[in-house]
Amino acid sequence: MKDMLGRDRVMTAEKALALLLETIGCRRTKTVAVDIERSLGMVCAEDVLAAENIPAFARSTVDGYAVRAEETFGATESMPAYLNLTGEILMGEQASDIAAEHTAFKIPTGGMLPADADAAVMFEHVQVIDDRLIEVMKPVAPGENVVQPGEDVATGEVIVKAGSRLRPQDIGACAGIGVREIRVFERPVVSIISTGDEIVPAERTPGMGEIRDTNSYVIAGMVSAAGGIPRKMGIYRDDYRVLRNAVEDALKESDAIAVSGGTSVGAKDMIARIIDDIGNPGILFHGLSLKPGKPMIGGVIQGVPIFGLPGHPAAVSVCFGIFVRPVLNLLSGLEDRPAYRLKGVVRARLSQNISSAAGREEHIRAMIEEREDGLWAVPILGKSGLIRTLVKADGTFVVPVNRNGIEKGEFIDITVF
Amino acid sequence: MKDMLGRDRVMTAEKALALLLETIGCRRTKTVAVDIERSLGMVCAEDVLAAENIPAFARSTVDGYAVRAEETFGATESMPAYLNLTGEILMGEQASDIAAEHTAFKIPTGGMLPADADAAVMFEHVQVIDDRLIEVMKPVAPGENVVQPGEDVATGEVIVKAGSRLRPQDIGACAGIGVREIRVFERPVVSIISTGDEIVPAERTPGMGEIRDTNSYVIAGMVSAAGGIPRKMGIYRDDYRVLRNAVEDALKESDAIAVSGGTSVGAKDMIARIIDDIGNPGILFHGLSLKPGKPMIGGVIQGVPIFGLPGHPAAVSVCFGIFVRPVLNLLSGLEDRPAYRLKGVVRARLSQNISSAAGREEHIRAMIEEREDGLWAVPILGKSGLIRTLVKADGTFVVPVNRNGIEKGEFIDITVF
Repeated sequence: MKDMLGRDRVMTAEKALALLLETIGCRRTKTVAVDIERSLGMVCAEDVLAAENIPAFARSTVDGYAVRAEETFGATESMPAYLNLTGEILMGEQASDIAAEHTAFKIPTGGMLPADADAAVMFEHVQVIDDRLIEVMKPVAPGENVVQPGEDVATGEVIVKAGSRLRPQDIGACAGIGVREIRVFERPVVSIISTGDEIVPAERTPGMGEIRDTNSYVIAGMVSAAGGIPRKMGIYRDDYRVLRNAVEDALKESDAIAVSGGTSVGAKDMIARIIDDIGNPGILFHGLSLKPGKPMIGGVIQGVPIFGLPGHPAAVSVCFGIFVRPVLNLLSGLEDRPAYRLKGVVRARLSQNISSAAGREEHIRAMIEEREDGLWAVPILGKSGLIRTLVKADGTFVVPVNRNGIEKGEFIDITVF
Repeated sequence: MKDMLGRDRVMTAEKALALLLETIGCRRTKTVAVDIERSLGMVCAEDVLAAENIPAFARSTVDGYAVRAEETFGATESMPAYLNLTGEILMGEQASDIAAEHTAFKIPTGGMLPADADAAVMFEHVQVIDDRLIEVMKPVAPGENVVQPGEDVATGEVIVKAGSRLRPQDIGACAGIGVREIRVFERPVVSIISTGDEIVPAERTPGMGEIRDTNSYVIAGMVSAAGGIPRKMGIYRDDYRVLRNAVEDALKESDAIAVSGGTSVGAKDMIARIIDDIGNPGILFHGLSLKPGKPMIGGVIQGVPIFGLPGHPAAVSVCFGIFVRPVLNLLSGLEDRPAYRLKGVVRARLSQNISSAAGREEHIRAMIEEREDGLWAVPILGKSGLIRTLVKADGTFVVPVNRNGIEKGEFIDITVF
């Protein structure tokens, strides 16, 4: 079977896409600085570095008492460690030092540890004698129940990588390090040219032989959903001069061009001829081993990708997903990560044993790795107070309420963020 | 283990959500008419009915010749049917009748069939003798290669159902039937109240003991991504009067309220107390068998759902997904369909045998059905020219290039639209 360019073998969709991406090469949309609150879904254009530590000071992760860990060593319920209660640390206030030996400060979760303290004891393990004395009934290790300065984000660390699609937690992490503006790739502008002598605008009542435009609405919606900006240019007659002018107009202000075809062979051939006549390089493929979508046309004109989409709505939808969306991702600088290709729920094997207390549902953050033998979920363990674990993760999986854990190699379902 | 309301058993996340949804009951956001081009991602508030047939006339689905089928019966390569070529039908023009017997009109894909013709013969099966005579070498059945009037959409048919989230193809279908405006549920407004004496705005340099706000950015991003409108109210001190005023203010203009917690027990308890003091009904749960997210608070005040989200970023993300997103879906009138819960790629069993020609990759549209024994994919077969198949489908699955089909019961991966 020959394709419409007279080649011996009709190309597969996979090869056609590879050829298209290779021809586009390193072309990207411009970059622009935007307020982080307007950056959701855009692609980060340069690494965001932390200019400071998060947290800037040691914080308690529990409601309890700030102590020197060594002064609790060996404590039990029957032989507790006695500590003098020196005062209370309030949220948002600088802690004073622990002055004397064998003293403790009451501290809330998130409170700043006094300089001499190195751990926090939970309320549950303390017996309060009176407002000046407590009994600690369980020892803590140095650093226990404490987030160290820079433990979440250390100065100089990359907090959001160039090429990432900005998610809510990435924006939160930027806010956390005081970054209010971020450089992103502009959303690619896709000009949409409708062709077909039978097509009338949606607002007009079609005469006999005419039908209303649907495809330009479908394409515009898919462009928006893919993070691009649709630019509907209107409906053009199947006339070489008229169509060529429309394509040349579109070239000036577009990152990509989608021509919503005429369904007939004649109309298709005209689009293909125009792409090749303007050239540089022109048509890359015309006709694929794909259903629906056999008459799909792909080309590049002066660096700008152009798609001759089939006339049938179902074919438009399929071909958009196979060709246009990946090209828009490339143009907007999106890094090629499995999590960006695989949305929703992804099945992967667990890279290590995970234990969990039965009786509660545990949600664990994980990265998705593409290895030779398939997808693996690498759990990101760490205190849930850390924004970093959320930024590094591609999604979460659940250890159900009735299980004690999941074994390495078991298949799990990760919900991608 | 008791929860923080003193109940004997800590509630599971599943039960807590069910209680929340039940208490909200039939409350929905207001409905509003919007231009279809601004409706992407919104939820349709009333059925959209077709006021006319699509197509309005019989159309050819191939490039070829419009004929009376019976005049091709029995035709073969050695014994072709001879037909007089009477003229050519142009795209977008009303076809004249086939005047005499044994005549044919040249017709493009999408062209209008003449009144007397009832089928179309593809170019491939015709030998052109001269510009007045053709040989048809293969018979066609009546209706073959033709879309009948109303075959895609019939007058009175529901084209988009109330409760659907509007996708590009739904908008295209509306355009196709001349519907330019559509009634949708307004996006739910979620007021975001940040609390915590240690929290400072992202633009301020935190002093010792203070940290910058990250959670309100994470929540705002998640609200936007879930189709809602975030309304950031700012950061409030952990003070009963101040916080209660903020909640009462928020009640006036919100469909839901998210309080981004203080991490400490004291701050949490204050939020819970305020929700219960305003009441009607007040707190529904406080403390869950969930990690991270144990201290999660849920309530309803005067019909408005209110969430006391945990202070840790990872817990915010988990609890948003479990509680806030489903509540926003409910408030915005979204129907409960598996495809709305299961995004991305969904594994399901095929409900019937599907055959496909090896040597091409075939994309088939399907609905996802939730049956007692799991998810099933019900293929929607039909001409790819029909917008209806795309509107009825939840997604597509692929028959790979090297396979002849897929058997009933086999597991396939559906990519949800």
